Amino acid sequence: MMTASPTATELSRTRPALRDGVLDPVDALAELAPIGRDEARGGWSRHLLDDADQKMREWFFQTAISLGLRFERDANANQWAVWAPPGASGKAVGTGSHLDSVPGGGPLDGPLGVVSSLAAVSRLIAEGHRPAHPIRVANFAEEEGARFGVPCLGSQLLCGELAPERVRALTDATGTSCAHVLEAGGYEPSVIGADPSRLADLAMYVELHVEQGCQLAPLDAPVGLATGILAHGRWLLTITGRGDHAGATELESRHDPMLVAATAIQAARTHALLADPATKGRATVGKLQVVPGGSNAIASEVRLWLDARAERDEDVRALVARIVAEMETSADSEGCEMALTEESFSTRVTFDAALTARIGAALRPTLGDVPRIPTGAGHDAGILAAYLPTAMLFVRNPDGVSHSPLEGATDDDIRAGVAALTDTLRALTSPEVA
Amino acid sequence: MMTASPTATELSRTRPALRDGVLDPVDALAELAPIGRDEARGGWSRHLLDDADQKMREWFFQTAISLGLRFERDANANQWAVWAPPGASGKAVGTGSHLDSVPGGGPLDGPLGVVSSLAAVSRLIAEGHRPAHPIRVANFAEEEGARFGVPCLGSQLLCGELAPERVRALTDATGTSCAHVLEAGGYEPSVIGADPSRLADLAMYVELHVEQGCQLAPLDAPVGLATGILAHGRWLLTITGRGDHAGATELESRHDPMLVAATAIQAARTHALLADPATKGRATVGKLQVVPGGSNAIASEVRLWLDARAERDEDVRALVARIVAEMETSADSEGCEMALTEESFSTRVTFDAALTARIGAALRPTLGDVPRIPTGAGHDAGILAAYLPTAMLFVRNPDGVSHSPLEGATDDDIRAGVAALTDTLRALTSPEVA
Repeated sequence: MMTASPTATELSRTRPALRDGVLDPVDALAELAPIGRDEARGGWSRHLLDDADQKMREWFFQTAISLGLRFERDANANQWAVWAPPGASGKAVGTGSHLDSVPGGGPLDGPLGVVSSLAAVSRLIAEGHRPAHPIRVANFAEEEGARFGVPCLGSQLLCGELAPERVRALTDATGTSCAHVLEAGGYEPSVIGADPSRLADLAMYVELHVEQGCQLAPLDAPVGLATGILAHGRWLLTITGRGDHAGATELESRHDPMLVAATAIQAARTHALLADPATKGRATVGKLQVVPGGSNAIASEVRLWLDARAERDEDVRALVARIVAEMETSADSEGCEMALTEESFSTRVTFDAALTARIGAALRPTLGDVPRIPTGAGHDAGILAAYLPTAMLFVRNPDGVSHSPLEGATDDDIRAGVAALTDTLRALTSPEVA
Repeated sequence: MMTASPTATELSRTRPALRDGVLDPVDALAELAPIGRDEARGGWSRHLLDDADQKMREWFFQTAISLGLRFERDANANQWAVWAPPGASGKAVGTGSHLDSVPGGGPLDGPLGVVSSLAAVSRLIAEGHRPAHPIRVANFAEEEGARFGVPCLGSQLLCGELAPERVRALTDATGTSCAHVLEAGGYEPSVIGADPSRLADLAMYVELHVEQGCQLAPLDAPVGLATGILAHGRWLLTITGRGDHAGATELESRHDPMLVAATAIQAARTHALLADPATKGRATVGKLQVVPGGSNAIASEVRLWLDARAERDEDVRALVARIVAEMETSADSEGCEMALTEESFSTRVTFDAALTARIGAALRPTLGDVPRIPTGAGHDAGILAAYLPTAMLFVRNPDGVSHSPLEGATDDDIRAGVAALTDTLRALTSPEVA
């Protein structure tokens, strides 16, 4: 199991987990394991251009160079490792994932995808494969949106989905602006934004990711192919009441925003349960901040984040509307004010059927018919899907747990995932099918 | 109104707000206003021996010296300013309050009591009063318990109400132990604990405090006398679930501790409302921490603090038991575990009737019959009440708000409070009634 097991050894920057030029994914993940350990929450915390993220980026750079790939960084803080040997021409096959994490997350979401991509390319190089097209491995910036609230920040900027001025003005929990963080991290904030020529370099994109959920284990399958991503979004709800003394304030004089927050948490669950099961509705409050946060003080303000997902965009909108309506009733009755901000919305994604079929055919000789499964989790591949043919491979997660230190996959399954991605990239860059 | 209005001037350590040897309370509060401003929460945050608290302590020291008082600090991080001129003998009349605050608290709880005590002594000195007994002004440490979770830390230690080894092992939000904080602040952690000889120095204790609640305004009274303090306590509830992905985890697979937290918030209100009104039950969740706290992650753990108060000790216990029982039902249904820790419990306090009557008589010539009101707020005077005759004076709070930056009192009422405390201390140290 590739799970927590922290090691005390620091990342060796000069010796990536290469054996005879081939990157072993299990060894590579072990190299990354010491970076960004979160002692308070457990697991790992690696957020846009913080110390841990910079160390992950340094690892990406060193590994790319060691494999003889061309390293590039784009204007939107995404990193690229390009394999374009003689004979490779035209648009590239894109692959990769992200190296940032949720707060206190697991070891595989998304380093497994980046590591597997570099490992697959190293195998193709070692076996003497002659690609008809370049392969571009991406490390997309701030996929989780843990620092600035907007998921898939790097891929959304690349695709022109986010207004640069909005992104520059985003602030993290300490009030530091995204512009400042980019600048301090060595990026020029004035040039972020749509990058159509770089996007046009990609003919297609295939992302490998640890499974989130538990659909492959009962099917006895180490690898699956994605059908699509639920529509999803996150909303910030700010509830304002009146701070006061918890002991001296009579019940009828209170304007306590915590009561409205409690309604939100329960309404998220209730309305998701009440929704038509076919809509696959789910809603969660996983982040909540109390101001001032004294145990003997009635809160003056509560900020909470609502994550909602469902099969179709309109199902998500309807679910959020029902939750917010119940919160408004609660706020009225408690004498609190409420403000709603949509931090992100990702429309329903259906991955490219033709590309997915090509990958399925490439995997059939070794894996048979690979299961096709939907996912509730957002991915950079979901952003890119609006612009080019896109597909995803999932590696079995025995307990299904993700966004948690308990997330894991067996070493065998990790290697099976790399083998599948290698087969995929070989097939997609072979002359006959280009 | 003495409310927020921050000033940019730094505290002048050499010029307390003295005019001809008399400390003006409004000027003194203005001197303290720049210390410990909390830009994130609003209001003030001053916690045990942090930078702000150390500045407050330095102000106390300088002001005591400037008034010609003897400065002492005890083993439990409490400060004392002693007026013991020739002719003053026997046990002292104690007065004072505390200079720490809740997170993002108001300007008056408890600096108003400390400032008013020093101001009252300065008036007695200036008018040539010859006290038959010393007067001891206290600044009690960590009254709010905001840093280490235990309210009235300094007075409880003094009275032997807390085991020193427990206090040394308490940790703050950063994991720093109380022993370390005491040592870094210049105190010797090995000698904290019961101080019976210092307690025996006090014949009685009178604390002035800003009113918390709104009972004096409708009575048109600038000053009130306390009858008693509700029984109260605070409990830490740790709810453990299973962290997971907010988008990928199906509703029926979730073990989300936030749902149990929501039950706690609502049960606190509901069971307080359902309790017999005569019990004056009230319960509040004002502090809540989510682990890991990612907007797209189901929480793995929630820690919340329950503050509960009522007329009698058994009313509080019954209220907490009902809330916890409802949480346990919710935890069972969600598949979460729950742990309960009692951080503090303060038994019902009835202030000394004879002392309160003496103070009422001393105030009658200028204020008439001063209203007598109960309070739901805890105070060091409530701790001391188990050991010596104790009383409290309240200064009108026009909106009743406390533990909030909105807390306030008019300048006239602040000066009326100092005049009342001056009359009180004069009467209690006059030879004929000693």
